[in-house]
Amino acid sequence: MSAIRAKVAERALNAGDRLPSIRSLAATMKVSPSTIVEAYDRLAAEGLIRARRGSGFYVAPSIMPPLALAEVEPRRDRAVDPFWVSRQSLDADAVVPKPGCGWLPPEWMPEAALRRAARALSRTDASVLTNYGSTRGAMALRRLLLARLAEDAIEASTDQLMLTGSGTQATDLICRFLLRPGDTVLVDDPCYFNFRALLRAHQARIVSVPYTPTGPDVTRFEQILRSERPRLYITNSALHNPSGATLSLQTAHRLLTAAAAHDLTIIEDDIFGDFEPERSPRLAALDGLNRVIRTGSFSKTLSASVRCGYIAGRADWIEHLVDLQVASNFGGPSPVATEIIAKVLAGGSYRKHMDELRQKLTRTRRDVARKLQALRIEPWLMPRGGFFLWCRLAGGLDATAVARAALEEDVVLAPGNVFSVAQTAPDLMRFNVAHMNDARVWDVLRRALKASA
Amino acid sequence: MSAIRAKVAERALNAGDRLPSIRSLAATMKVSPSTIVEAYDRLAAEGLIRARRGSGFYVAPSIMPPLALAEVEPRRDRAVDPFWVSRQSLDADAVVPKPGCGWLPPEWMPEAALRRAARALSRTDASVLTNYGSTRGAMALRRLLLARLAEDAIEASTDQLMLTGSGTQATDLICRFLLRPGDTVLVDDPCYFNFRALLRAHQARIVSVPYTPTGPDVTRFEQILRSERPRLYITNSALHNPSGATLSLQTAHRLLTAAAAHDLTIIEDDIFGDFEPERSPRLAALDGLNRVIRTGSFSKTLSASVRCGYIAGRADWIEHLVDLQVASNFGGPSPVATEIIAKVLAGGSYRKHMDELRQKLTRTRRDVARKLQALRIEPWLMPRGGFFLWCRLAGGLDATAVARAALEEDVVLAPGNVFSVAQTAPDLMRFNVAHMNDARVWDVLRRALKASA
Repeated sequence: MSAIRAKVAERALNAGDRLPSIRSLAATMKVSPSTIVEAYDRLAAEGLIRARRGSGFYVAPSIMPPLALAEVEPRRDRAVDPFWVSRQSLDADAVVPKPGCGWLPPEWMPEAALRRAARALSRTDASVLTNYGSTRGAMALRRLLLARLAEDAIEASTDQLMLTGSGTQATDLICRFLLRPGDTVLVDDPCYFNFRALLRAHQARIVSVPYTPTGPDVTRFEQILRSERPRLYITNSALHNPSGATLSLQTAHRLLTAAAAHDLTIIEDDIFGDFEPERSPRLAALDGLNRVIRTGSFSKTLSASVRCGYIAGRADWIEHLVDLQVASNFGGPSPVATEIIAKVLAGGSYRKHMDELRQKLTRTRRDVARKLQALRIEPWLMPRGGFFLWCRLAGGLDATAVARAALEEDVVLAPGNVFSVAQTAPDLMRFNVAHMNDARVWDVLRRALKASA
Repeated sequence: MSAIRAKVAERALNAGDRLPSIRSLAATMKVSPSTIVEAYDRLAAEGLIRARRGSGFYVAPSIMPPLALAEVEPRRDRAVDPFWVSRQSLDADAVVPKPGCGWLPPEWMPEAALRRAARALSRTDASVLTNYGSTRGAMALRRLLLARLAEDAIEASTDQLMLTGSGTQATDLICRFLLRPGDTVLVDDPCYFNFRALLRAHQARIVSVPYTPTGPDVTRFEQILRSERPRLYITNSALHNPSGATLSLQTAHRLLTAAAAHDLTIIEDDIFGDFEPERSPRLAALDGLNRVIRTGSFSKTLSASVRCGYIAGRADWIEHLVDLQVASNFGGPSPVATEIIAKVLAGGSYRKHMDELRQKLTRTRRDVARKLQALRIEPWLMPRGGFFLWCRLAGGLDATAVARAALEEDVVLAPGNVFSVAQTAPDLMRFNVAHMNDARVWDVLRRALKASA
């Protein structure tokens, strides 16, 4: 149903178009014809499609003006650069399996709470529906966030916190504030590929430090600070992307000591923090938001559509970052977005949702790891939480070749080297366990491995 | 009611706080006590506040965790720079009159259509509520936009159009793509103050060309292209901000001829286009999206909370701009936002809303102009549409001093020089006629004029 809905929403199917025959769609989607019949019947009941006796189902007349223009497909031929996975997974058709993507499927998100929040939105004050956001974002959500930061032992005042349009925008604003073209920035090897894309946009010189199961290799970290003099270090807390590793308290302390000695600023992106079974050390907590800037968002746990990120840091820096946000976005994040998020966070259901999500992910990580091992794909470590497995392919197989082969069959994978500045991960791959409950994924993966062997 | 709601939403009033007495609030808000009584009664009926017999009204217990932290006021002492008006008007309390701001009050916006769209949102496909947006933004809205561009005689294909997080983000992405620190950028004198703020963030060298009632002074424009070699020219089409002037066809042609001779790229921001009584020349239409890039948003006519902007330009440039948006925001604009906007645009009510709005603004511009003239404040010209009046104060009065005096009495004004790179507008001021239907504005303005005389 959601596949058909998406096609209609994206106007891939237009009013009057005939839907695929029940038999053919059942085949493509690897489900029984009766499932398709039921889906079509429900969609017809909703009025989205209509049955014509003897000639199948058609898209019902829509309110959109009919236009016949060619859609732009994500380009498969482009280089496997830091944008490759983003472009393929963001623009993939709804039915395309995306074990390479960095978010959860809709059915894993707090859908009911979001629908309640949308209904409440329809009855909220007109100013929320029509006005620009204040420069630091809605106070109600900022207060909720300050309470959550306090749970991480990060005591901040309102003038140390600002809301942004997204977690990525939070990092981007800080880079705009601190970096000039040619500045050196340190990231982990491997690291979230979009850090590379963002730093490229800032024309930064990127160096990387090997990531170990307890955080960056501290000895190498200290050497790099001495030799490369990076202005900034960008990393994840809680659950590292893509490795799933967790920073140890001792590593955190040594890292901050080295940072102080070389006046290094650190961005600690906490985007996966809520997936932790129990809290791990936070650089921002040890440092007290002095040289560490904490960023985060709700895209992974609440909604990636209702976007909002945040920055917690030194008050004098926040004041400058607010100016930069006004200049580059005019006003803070959408009041509609902040109201929906505040509503979901304040309602009791969010914590319950996260508890269930963590349990479901623990089971799924274990099951998927076992199935991957059967294909001689070995997890680098078993993460404490989250939905990623960072795995090594058997026999030094080329992960990029495997990903290209899989894409030919409409399955998006994430080859290791898009995460590696030093290109040290040619035979590694990041799997999103929440997107692998689909026989096609495994069929395609098996074929792609064979083809690349 | 909205004032109280806002104070509670922003936690300026917390659960258990006593509301102002009916008599005092009636005085502050210059309304009859019976109006306040009715408002309080309605809010009590909604459950937001509670009456205690004999001791007035109190804020009802809220779902928010109680926290007692100091709110950060907009800083009044900061320099009157391009950020001054933005900061003051974005962060002003809901009850503060803002004739200096650049948007319409909630009651002038299509509130009913937005509420309908929010209700529809609560029933939409889960993927819209939870997923990232595609890199170019929702196809349904892009198709609607292409149809609207065609009405402006701008024929574009889907690969020439992308959606962005806001109109400001659209301009920002283009600047990131085209500019390097130190590059020269040409703007109008006067121009939208946030263009100055944005270009400052890009460390651009800003030069300006005097704006006339028919567009930029073309002779000066040609001289500046020869002598300063700007990389980019940023301007408004349809209704120029702040002057309200309209580009003539002849000026548009000469301007594009000069631009071609010096390989100048032009950003044409169409944000006020829908306020025109009848269509005026568009540079993008004459040029055919070759060296002119068209940007716009729905913040002024539909909602500034449900944010979304767009860029129409050369397909090869759009492809690069999409990468920049992925890097700096990850994914296109919020599917929630694009679905709400598409819903309102596609529903018949939007055009009707704009028709009524234009008529209402025509009356209001005339009435406000007459009242300003009574204070010897003369419009530089009477605009064909929109909600701005760019006016000269009598006797070379210092507009900045007047704005500072007004702010002391909680009225936000927009002094001329924040719009002027060359600081040629010390005695001019931009008035938003939709925010002047309030006796306090006129009282404060009179006093501020007297104090600065």
